[in-house]
Amino acid sequence: MTAAPPGSPEGLAPHADPHPARHPDDVRAAELDRAHVFHSWSAQGALAPFVLAGGSGSEVWDHAGRRYLDFSSQLVNTNIGHGHPAVVQAIQMQADLLPTVAPATANLTRGLAARAVVAHAPAGMHKIFFTNGGADANENAIRLARQHTGRDKVVSLYRSYHGNTGAAVVATGDWRRVPNEYARGHVHAFGPYLYRSDFWATTPEEECERALRHLERVIQCEGPASVAAVLLETVVGTGGVLVPPDGYLAGVRALCDRYGVLLILDEVMSGFGRTGAWLALDHWGVRPDLVTFAKGVNSGYVPAGGVLISDAVAATFDDRVFPGGLTYSGHPLAMAAVVATIETMEREHVVENAARIGADVLGPGLAALADRHPVIGEVRGLGVFWALELVADRATREPLPPALVARVKSEMMARDLLPFLADNRIHVVPPCVVTDDEVARALAVYDEALTVIEGEL
Amino acid sequence: MTAAPPGSPEGLAPHADPHPARHPDDVRAAELDRAHVFHSWSAQGALAPFVLAGGSGSEVWDHAGRRYLDFSSQLVNTNIGHGHPAVVQAIQMQADLLPTVAPATANLTRGLAARAVVAHAPAGMHKIFFTNGGADANENAIRLARQHTGRDKVVSLYRSYHGNTGAAVVATGDWRRVPNEYARGHVHAFGPYLYRSDFWATTPEEECERALRHLERVIQCEGPASVAAVLLETVVGTGGVLVPPDGYLAGVRALCDRYGVLLILDEVMSGFGRTGAWLALDHWGVRPDLVTFAKGVNSGYVPAGGVLISDAVAATFDDRVFPGGLTYSGHPLAMAAVVATIETMEREHVVENAARIGADVLGPGLAALADRHPVIGEVRGLGVFWALELVADRATREPLPPALVARVKSEMMARDLLPFLADNRIHVVPPCVVTDDEVARALAVYDEALTVIEGEL
Repeated sequence: MTAAPPGSPEGLAPHADPHPARHPDDVRAAELDRAHVFHSWSAQGALAPFVLAGGSGSEVWDHAGRRYLDFSSQLVNTNIGHGHPAVVQAIQMQADLLPTVAPATANLTRGLAARAVVAHAPAGMHKIFFTNGGADANENAIRLARQHTGRDKVVSLYRSYHGNTGAAVVATGDWRRVPNEYARGHVHAFGPYLYRSDFWATTPEEECERALRHLERVIQCEGPASVAAVLLETVVGTGGVLVPPDGYLAGVRALCDRYGVLLILDEVMSGFGRTGAWLALDHWGVRPDLVTFAKGVNSGYVPAGGVLISDAVAATFDDRVFPGGLTYSGHPLAMAAVVATIETMEREHVVENAARIGADVLGPGLAALADRHPVIGEVRGLGVFWALELVADRATREPLPPALVARVKSEMMARDLLPFLADNRIHVVPPCVVTDDEVARALAVYDEALTVIEGEL
Repeated sequence: MTAAPPGSPEGLAPHADPHPARHPDDVRAAELDRAHVFHSWSAQGALAPFVLAGGSGSEVWDHAGRRYLDFSSQLVNTNIGHGHPAVVQAIQMQADLLPTVAPATANLTRGLAARAVVAHAPAGMHKIFFTNGGADANENAIRLARQHTGRDKVVSLYRSYHGNTGAAVVATGDWRRVPNEYARGHVHAFGPYLYRSDFWATTPEEECERALRHLERVIQCEGPASVAAVLLETVVGTGGVLVPPDGYLAGVRALCDRYGVLLILDEVMSGFGRTGAWLALDHWGVRPDLVTFAKGVNSGYVPAGGVLISDAVAATFDDRVFPGGLTYSGHPLAMAAVVATIETMEREHVVENAARIGADVLGPGLAALADRHPVIGEVRGLGVFWALELVADRATREPLPPALVARVKSEMMARDLLPFLADNRIHVVPPCVVTDDEVARALAVYDEALTVIEGEL
């Protein structure tokens, strides 16, 4: 784990480090980062990113060999864990064969990857458009929906994240701009979230019924004939691990059918084991028109995403040009990682492990934690996809102030656990291969960190 | 080259193939493709993609071992050629260390990749925001320009391609939508293209002067205070390999300075050796505020792109959150490929080879071809980035009809050459490592194919 990475120039001497515990490569990595790397969603001036150099299973480490228990799965993507040898080997073998090829060709590894994804899709979905990640998966799902329906507007939720892109195709000048340019309408609605209800609801049934009524009113008021799609994360991810109440997704499907609107389910974060099912939609048996995925499909070992397309939508483009594309659509190296990831998850029962951990170990453990810690306002989730909602006051549900949330994070980091924090929440999102013992270790860290914070409240 | 790819299920028997020359894996790849793969920018019904299974240098092959001379570089991205062992090995070593890591961390390979790119950047550009490809590189350059200037509009050219994304961040509901949502203004102008001038010009000097005057008029009429950036491909790529006349880019820089507008140069296709320089902008010494890249930076062996950011623009975000990001920003596997690609291109003088081939072999060879073939209306380009403009009539410059362009393509494919065709043009875009002998072979194929077509005109 302390080997120099490939391409490391030999002439650069390690810098002297005042901190005796730091490995020279950690110092060098941090210095190069601050000199040259511009980071996502951040002010750059005060950043001091910590260094990661390697990983295995649910653990990652720096060059000095300090190990962290990864209960973030990085950005909730390493579902199969770090450094799984079967996926690493598949990447290495494909690199020898053919790392990259144009999307207009046929490639056996790409075909096998598509078939492997389709094998876990709802009935009536047989074709896949591959992308580089989740953002462009959603881009192309939206494009497919707009082209298929001839309508413009997309209804999504205020509590949602669907990617960071929004301008390149309209900056483009050639013909590929024109079929995409008309479509600009985006409408946002509220989704079910009983703990902080936007519908004055007091029971899951009431929240569900009112959220559906609200969504229908938005569609009606926007003009159903202008609405191409409803776009939802099956389980809202970064927005709070919001598991939909039973009946919600079936209700949305019925609304979409009533108004001729397509249903796009964003499974970028929730798919491929995260919820203890291959796709989160499996929990409710809902049949969407389009499904987007990325992250867990190959645990992000090579950037990849895609759109699962229903047969009806696919047929629209048999004789009509689909106006979307990208250089690395169906990239062989990414596809090799997809095939190996899915086959390994099947063989090693990784999805089943996530389900069992959620039902028998992590869920009960987090509930027990909430019993002991009044700072936990709500525990919710399934599989290895959970949120602890931290509150200053259980009665008012006032969120824990940001400074204390930051303290929770640093207390957990100090105990060698990588947490995932969002607003006033801890998202508990280990790899799907996490073991009972690792869950026990993490629960002990959460326990200690929350005890410290409660002492300061 | 006939080995089963990683993850290939053992239980699937090869299909019987009526065509004795086809390898069963080629048949299987084509069948899986038609069953499950949805392709870019195409009607899907009539597609019959040909199979590629491996490659080395300027050649690619199918499972049966039929070899093609790749004068497309796939989508003009395999600048270092196919299967370069140094890049393959770097990917394989990084896969063993750590395939993926969150962008919020520091990682030594990412730092080394950033430094390697910065080493070939114009002065005053030291930071890089990494992306998955060219589209999201342009997305984030546009975002940086809008945030830095507080202005909305982006002026780009009708003859341009900047990527296929345009909706995900406005479909997003959380706070990350808001700073991106205001910015919708896209304006298109005409650029210099003397062979089909939009300015009634007859000399390069006149075309340059008039194109600048036109661009200034557009900026003035849009309201300079609303214009965030001018976005240009340094050499327009898919739009026709349009090399800007001397003085044009300097003139655009002066216009941008006059109106407080940022200059974004899109080097996704033109960068990293394609024009016989590290960046195409080096030919004219222009100093942009932002440079986008992808493709050649690691030859697409792992999906990657990025934005080179001037110190002035970067400083804006020292204390202010940059509202953009993505899961695979600075992906270690992609970064290992970047480091190895750039070091190998330096060590093996790959950029110098592209310059020499362009000046001494390919440029003169294409000019000689044009002397013999009246169907060639113009030859233009530099390095390994050339276009042959095919015309039905040299006097009227009427483009060769699409049916005959398709015939050119099939004649070249029949002679085992992979061409790149766009509208009525052959883009001559081999890898930067192409040899004199391979150029001679390709010129002979072009010669034969054009002779056939001229017989049918």
